[in-house]
Amino acid sequence: MPVPESVRVWEIVGDQGIDALHSNRRTGYQPQAGQVLVKVQATSLNFRDLSTILDPAARALTYPRVPNSDCAGEIVAAGPRVSHVAPGDRVAGCFFQSWKDGGISAAAMASALGGPLDGVLGEYALLAESGVVHVPEHLTFAQAACLPCAGVTAWNCLMRVGDVQAGDTVLLLGTGGVSITALQFAVAQGARVIITSAHDAKLKRAAALGAWQTVNYRSTPQWDAAVLKMTGGKGVDFVLEVGGAGTLPRSLNAVRVGGRIALIGVLTRGEIDPTVIMRKSIRVQGVYVGSRSMFEDMNRFITAHELRPVIDRHFAFDDAREAYHCMRSAEHFGKLVIDV
Amino acid sequence: MPVPESVRVWEIVGDQGIDALHSNRRTGYQPQAGQVLVKVQATSLNFRDLSTILDPAARALTYPRVPNSDCAGEIVAAGPRVSHVAPGDRVAGCFFQSWKDGGISAAAMASALGGPLDGVLGEYALLAESGVVHVPEHLTFAQAACLPCAGVTAWNCLMRVGDVQAGDTVLLLGTGGVSITALQFAVAQGARVIITSAHDAKLKRAAALGAWQTVNYRSTPQWDAAVLKMTGGKGVDFVLEVGGAGTLPRSLNAVRVGGRIALIGVLTRGEIDPTVIMRKSIRVQGVYVGSRSMFEDMNRFITAHELRPVIDRHFAFDDAREAYHCMRSAEHFGKLVIDV
Amino acid sequence: MPVPESVRVWEIVGDQGIDALHSNRRTGYQPQAGQVLVKVQATSLNFRDLSTILDPAARALTYPRVPNSDCAGEIVAAGPRVSHVAPGDRVAGCFFQSWKDGGISAAAMASALGGPLDGVLGEYALLAESGVVHVPEHLTFAQAACLPCAGVTAWNCLMRVGDVQAGDTVLLLGTGGVSITALQFAVAQGARVIITSAHDAKLKRAAALGAWQTVNYRSTPQWDAAVLKMTGGKGVDFVLEVGGAGTLPRSLNAVRVGGRIALIGVLTRGEIDPTVIMRKSIRVQGVYVGSRSMFEDMNRFITAHELRPVIDRHFAFDDAREAYHCMRSAEHFGKLVIDV
Amino acid sequence: MPVPESVRVWEIVGDQGIDALHSNRRTGYQPQAGQVLVKVQATSLNFRDLSTILDPAARALTYPRVPNSDCAGEIVAAGPRVSHVAPGDRVAGCFFQSWKDGGISAAAMASALGGPLDGVLGEYALLAESGVVHVPEHLTFAQAACLPCAGVTAWNCLMRVGDVQAGDTVLLLGTGGVSITALQFAVAQGARVIITSAHDAKLKRAAALGAWQTVNYRSTPQWDAAVLKMTGGKGVDFVLEVGGAGTLPRSLNAVRVGGRIALIGVLTRGEIDPTVIMRKSIRVQGVYVGSRSMFEDMNRFITAHELRPVIDRHFAFDDAREAYHCMRSAEHFGKLVIDV
Repeated sequence: MPVPESVRVWEIVGDQGIDALHSNRRTGYQPQAGQVLVKVQATSLNFRDLSTILDPAARALTYPRVPNSDCAGEIVAAGPRVSHVAPGDRVAGCFFQSWKDGGISAAAMASALGGPLDGVLGEYALLAESGVVHVPEHLTFAQAACLPCAGVTAWNCLMRVGDVQAGDTVLLLGTGGVSITALQFAVAQGARVIITSAHDAKLKRAAALGAWQTVNYRSTPQWDAAVLKMTGGKGVDFVLEVGGAGTLPRSLNAVRVGGRIALIGVLTRGEIDPTVIMRKSIRVQGVYVGSRSMFEDMNRFITAHELRPVIDRHFAFDDAREAYHCMRSAEHFGKLVIDV
Repeated sequence: MPVPESVRVWEIVGDQGIDALHSNRRTGYQPQAGQVLVKVQATSLNFRDLSTILDPAARALTYPRVPNSDCAGEIVAAGPRVSHVAPGDRVAGCFFQSWKDGGISAAAMASALGGPLDGVLGEYALLAESGVVHVPEHLTFAQAACLPCAGVTAWNCLMRVGDVQAGDTVLLLGTGGVSITALQFAVAQGARVIITSAHDAKLKRAAALGAWQTVNYRSTPQWDAAVLKMTGGKGVDFVLEVGGAGTLPRSLNAVRVGGRIALIGVLTRGEIDPTVIMRKSIRVQGVYVGSRSMFEDMNRFITAHELRPVIDRHFAFDDAREAYHCMRSAEHFGKLVIDV
Repeated sequence: MPVPESVRVWEIVGDQGIDALHSNRRTGYQPQAGQVLVKVQATSLNFRDLSTILDPAARALTYPRVPNSDCAGEIVAAGPRVSHVAPGDRVAGCFFQSWKDGGISAAAMASALGGPLDGVLGEYALLAESGVVHVPEHLTFAQAACLPCAGVTAWNCLMRVGDVQAGDTVLLLGTGGVSITALQFAVAQGARVIITSAHDAKLKRAAALGAWQTVNYRSTPQWDAAVLKMTGGKGVDFVLEVGGAGTLPRSLNAVRVGGRIALIGVLTRGEIDPTVIMRKSIRVQGVYVGSRSMFEDMNRFITAHELRPVIDRHFAFDDAREAYHCMRSAEHFGKLVIDV
Repeated sequence: MPVPESVRVWEIVGDQGIDALHSNRRTGYQPQAGQVLVKVQATSLNFRDLSTILDPAARALTYPRVPNSDCAGEIVAAGPRVSHVAPGDRVAGCFFQSWKDGGISAAAMASALGGPLDGVLGEYALLAESGVVHVPEHLTFAQAACLPCAGVTAWNCLMRVGDVQAGDTVLLLGTGGVSITALQFAVAQGARVIITSAHDAKLKRAAALGAWQTVNYRSTPQWDAAVLKMTGGKGVDFVLEVGGAGTLPRSLNAVRVGGRIALIGVLTRGEIDPTVIMRKSIRVQGVYVGSRSMFEDMNRFITAHELRPVIDRHFAFDDAREAYHCMRSAEHFGKLVIDV
């Protein structure tokens, strides 16, 4: 397949929020040594992509910048010295183009797609050979496009930070992409999941996916007390904390002595008293997505348990702005996907 | 050796602070099944013992209560069904009488000496067979008495939480018992240690013990910036944080992306912004001493490297109050020991 | 409930094989400090119990000796200082009465029931408090009695030695108690299982339990070549080797570069060439049941996945000899249980 | 620095043993994308290099083939897209050019220098960017050239397979490159080392390097019994087994219940009875050098403890054959190095 002369992409061109998203054509998609050209079939949205667009200054974004970290598609061309993948392969891009294995580093953080590097909201994406992974065969491209950020984040939190085992009790906050993916992983692993939401309808859907207990945090503002009661006063083994300073004090209260909290989001800012971390010997671990090695481990798990990401809505490529408005309304359950 | 009719102990009898320490005689030291009677030769003081005396209400202490968690001595009698130790053995008591192995639990926390249970500031102590460990042969009783709280805490922090390896860079705050013990362990492990103090004389002694760099936090109030500079801007791999809200923000600044912080003290109270924990993928882990299994691992390390705890001052048993006043003045470098 | 004056047990009284099993009455069942009295409801047989009876000299058995390591029942009395269990609790005995956690030791090995210590083939058993575990609520006593030896062995092999993850390929040899339990665990974990047998009917049952591939080693004597073919020439990640010198060379051939083999049995004796262990960087790990901590981990997994041990046949207490003859015929699929 | 037109190398040209080593000139040393050109300053010999020359058929070697896996030198040129190293850097080559991290694989094994790939016995070597590591600053090139095979093998065995901790007892066989490097690592780690040799003079040198006990296996042919006695009948925690079938039975006898054996060599062929592996719950792990990640971990350890490889003799580049004859005589203590 010939390399296209030019490629349609969406770009962030300024700090006007979602209105700063403009469609454009780019050239220069000939893969160099160690690179592959991916025909993007689907890209999914993450809260992080929205916040990048809403506050590009906070991330020192340079313009124009192609947003979005997550895509799945087919390799259509490969540069010299590419040996592990080949044209025709179904792949997803890795959130970090250069975090292969081991712990996170500043260098890895500088290789995030849709931030320091151009992202994948386009018809094609030029990626490092070591920056793509094969996707599970039973997944559609849209489903595979849900994995690079939300999937790997949920995996890293649950399996690496939480080391969640069968029989453990896990607390998930809300029903966004990370939490719903984590719900699926935890249930397949044999863990008992408590999940919160402001909407009973969403809690019903979570229960249908296998949640053990649900809590409506609007009708039960002291949801930490409810969680403690559900666990006989002991607390949960692990919390996947997506909120930040606004919810962390309650999460610290709801976790057991010696328990663990993965901290991935700061939807709300503020301060917390660290005393309880010490008093209950809690581990609080900041998490920023994960490595390619984790992505591969997760894919084996997804294949073995035949899991499928939960997609709330699909959007057309031309409706990218609408997808972002939908993400902003925070009404979704699971993932939002743009089919390219 | 016959079991003594009565035993001299020091007791906390109220909430008047150090003045509430009174000498008394107790009876009932006949070891029951699974118990051993230890002739205490030395007991060391920890900051936690001082704060128990200064604020017994915070720990819901009942009176009278024998203080101090740390002792070393000789077993002089054993109850029925004791099989792993015998009279004549040189042992130290475990801080937690029932945390053998694995992770901490609420039940383990309820078995701390000198808090929920009577401590060891007496001529004899009645302990569980599984609540004592053999001490390294090359140590005096006074040296061995420095290990149960400060030693095991330093070990748990460095080796378990920090997983400190040769070549890692470690930041220690101050020159109290835990920090100086951690300094010795880290140096033997091949790590580079940066240590802070308000006194240049103490920093000199720390350097003599093998510290790689020292920072006077009085003359360099922005010690976190100094630490970053020493590490080429990268930050340290691990911080043993003994301070709390007052120092934690600087520790979070001084640690590298993906680094770890063991949180053992809250000398100062306050609140912190958790954003940086997430932004730098930091692990913050509360630590409360450690298990008997860690104590045994530590003893093998101490023996192999022929380490000796650093003792600042010795006190006579009758001068127990004076030892506490000395702890309160916070002028010491290393440990304070009462010879019994 | 009163402690019985005397208790019916089966004893090995000599080296005449199964004929040396005699029924007798014993006294002295009053629990001492740290002990519990269990009303045995069921006991299961393991190949190890048979080989103990067939060759007591090889184990330096003293007579008379009560055989069998595995029982489940209800605690009916507790001695002084028993705090973690109480009369009325449903428990199973631990194979090793004193291997709590960590690695195996010579001391732990000396505490095996039905060997160095009297076993549980009786109406009651006197066990250490720390030598029993609570059993999953959804299991009958007969099902729970299948766990102490075969269950914990399968768990230790798969989860500790093999570290088997979703997507891994596992090879199991034969359809005895350990292999069938391992099949259930591996399937629940998301692994692909290849299992061998000499009987197509047993292979069909294994497939019904979730085996991915089956091999009749009678019709396919070179089953290692068949396994290699099934895995595209790569070999399996893990083998649970129950055979010994007779099958180990084929297992070494069937495992992948860097793969692992748990070695639990030596049904056949002989010698092997260790070269391939080095050439393929294989790990061969001898396994002898496991610790109480593993038992508890396994129980959480069994509860979470609602697994039930597969029982081939039940026998009455009076028919204990017949149960041993049945074990000897090796025709079973899963476990043989004696209801007491 | 300009890339040389042609480069002097030694090649294996047939199966005549050491006589098949011939000097030649090669061209084509222009680094491609992702490659670096290393000016070789020193190369060390390993027993594996000798056996490759003595029995090239066993390794299916194609001729001509440049031997030797180990070199150190300076990068003099880099191809496009090289980002982690640069001309002027002091580096050593990795034994496996494509085993970066994680477990070994068949693909990794196919990337060994001086076997499936041309080795480094030449004035220059063309290596993958990801196939070199920076060497510790305090080492000469000759010392650094001792690390890629013998150093990484010793590290993998002791630290990964053996997980050797301070206070553990380690058994080393003989005084070749791997054993002497392992002796240095184990002593720095705080382990007690027992080492064997046929020569008292070599045992004296080993003792000077920190060995705790020595055994002359010529005067004490039953050295396993001697080792058991030294450990109070318990056995050692870990054996680095370099011999094979000839020594493995004694190593299995000398290791403790639950102990570990790393198997790296088969100097002698034969068969062993696997029963003891099961009976004592021993782990036998085949080891083939190690990954680049292990190399980097080892270098941090070497730097932290200021270790220096022990070199027995230096040879000139023109005397390569003599170096091989010296290796064959097996009289050395530590490493043999060719200065280029």
